[in-house]
Amino acid sequence: MKENEQSVSNSWNPWNVIHPPVSVIGLGMMGSALAQTFLKEGHQTTVWNRTAGKADALRKQGAKVASTVNEAIAASPMVAICVLDYGTVHEILEESGEILAGRAIVNLTNGTPAQARRTAAWVAGRGAEYLDGGIMAVPQMIGTTGALVLYSGSEKVFQTCQPTLKGLGTANFLGEDPGLAPLYDLALLSAMYGMFGGFFHATAMIRSEQIKAGAFTELAVPWLQTMAASLPRMAQAVDVGDHRTNVSSLSINQTGFVHFIEACRELGISAELMTPIQELISRGVAEGYGTDGLSRLVELIRNPASV
Amino acid sequence: MKENEQSVSNSWNPWNVIHPPVSVIGLGMMGSALAQTFLKEGHQTTVWNRTAGKADALRKQGAKVASTVNEAIAASPMVAICVLDYGTVHEILEESGEILAGRAIVNLTNGTPAQARRTAAWVAGRGAEYLDGGIMAVPQMIGTTGALVLYSGSEKVFQTCQPTLKGLGTANFLGEDPGLAPLYDLALLSAMYGMFGGFFHATAMIRSEQIKAGAFTELAVPWLQTMAASLPRMAQAVDVGDHRTNVSSLSINQTGFVHFIEACRELGISAELMTPIQELISRGVAEGYGTDGLSRLVELIRNPASV
Repeated sequence: MKENEQSVSNSWNPWNVIHPPVSVIGLGMMGSALAQTFLKEGHQTTVWNRTAGKADALRKQGAKVASTVNEAIAASPMVAICVLDYGTVHEILEESGEILAGRAIVNLTNGTPAQARRTAAWVAGRGAEYLDGGIMAVPQMIGTTGALVLYSGSEKVFQTCQPTLKGLGTANFLGEDPGLAPLYDLALLSAMYGMFGGFFHATAMIRSEQIKAGAFTELAVPWLQTMAASLPRMAQAVDVGDHRTNVSSLSINQTGFVHFIEACRELGISAELMTPIQELISRGVAEGYGTDGLSRLVELIRNPASV
Repeated sequence: MKENEQSVSNSWNPWNVIHPPVSVIGLGMMGSALAQTFLKEGHQTTVWNRTAGKADALRKQGAKVASTVNEAIAASPMVAICVLDYGTVHEILEESGEILAGRAIVNLTNGTPAQARRTAAWVAGRGAEYLDGGIMAVPQMIGTTGALVLYSGSEKVFQTCQPTLKGLGTANFLGEDPGLAPLYDLALLSAMYGMFGGFFHATAMIRSEQIKAGAFTELAVPWLQTMAASLPRMAQAVDVGDHRTNVSSLSINQTGFVHFIEACRELGISAELMTPIQELISRGVAEGYGTDGLSRLVELIRNPASV
């Protein structure tokens, strides 16, 4: 690694400036937002996209448009990649040859922990450093502190690039295992989809009685925020493997759910988003965990085929 | 009503004291917590349960134990009922005859909007006032401001009983339609179950990689609280029926979900809590709403049979 580093640093130290040059590969909605933000922050920004044309708006904003991926990589010590999937990442990087050596590859492409680990190993094999990133935001949020970006992999790259990465949003380093960022990304997404699903069901109930969703939300938002604050207690039960409760057992929830599903039917609302939770609770009771709390359910949603 | 009121108020005004007498019918975990809290607050508290024995602990704490339901109702101007279901409410009240007249019946039993409306009409027919209540708390929380209790029905009863009801927790009056409290209760419950379901799935993912759930929760709680703050925007889209978005369309979510479900499989996690959301999104795209935002989903979960 040290030798390779010299390949970009023996004439000048590219990091030794307030706004080091940055390259962005992939100019979909998210990649374009990243490039635009780097430009606004004052970085010399080189962009490349496999299909041309997507760079036009960025060129007008001051971006250098590389004509090959190698030209884009060669332009900067830090190369951000944001493409459709990891397969595309590899197709693109495999064209790059030795030019990767010594650079910091910050891969912001969506993928899985295993994909991130494989890519990190592949990139290390080319003498480059790898940082994986999970963007917990929509493109419109990039450049605000509201955009949370999770990173994992090379801590050295994170530390070096932090002033640059902070421009994109709130930067959170999770650890040296490159799989952590995609793992947390996927987990936070599931938590969000679950909450949204519950809200959709709730709002459908409210609307079925001609009540304004806005009126309901005034109560629902603080309610959900209060309920979210109870999650660390459940997490602790999961971590210590002690699911006993004197508050709300699976059996109590199972009984309540029968009334709840009847009420959905009465209101003419499909219970499709709620029955999987009911089934999971019932499975827990059937497996002898009726007196345990809801935290027990975490242990029941492993794929039986994989256990 | 006015005449009936005199039946309990012509000798003395039972409300005209700081802590008016209260009766509690039903001494399950929740009913017992209500009675215990009334006692602590300094109310003369009369209790009754269909099966005897449940009142013993409360008797020691100072409760009067009625030997008949009529004796319990006769003891107080406000009668709180907390039993298994509305069928039980009616079985109990139908024994009470004319003694109901002029009293405030505060029904904290779980049920549906239609049940609450039917019971309100039935109680009005007996010359009593009806207030429905939905308790958004577990018994252990009763008596703290963290216990949210939703009320609907007679505003007069709510106003009169408010000093008493406030002892149970934060009291929120939703309106004169008695169905509102159970409607909001059920809707808030679904929002909670959805959020919990998402959290269970997320935590299963995290644990599959031997990461502590507690470490994940440090990020997940503020993340969910931030996401909850985005719900009013979705609610507004629902209320005005305009689901257009330039942020996160159903098509974008559909594409992302394919990767997401693959990642669940890779981690050995059953996607049972997530696939219903995926199916709903796909249905939205199939029905031509691909460019709409997630708020469109609210309109797709009505029961087709009922439309």
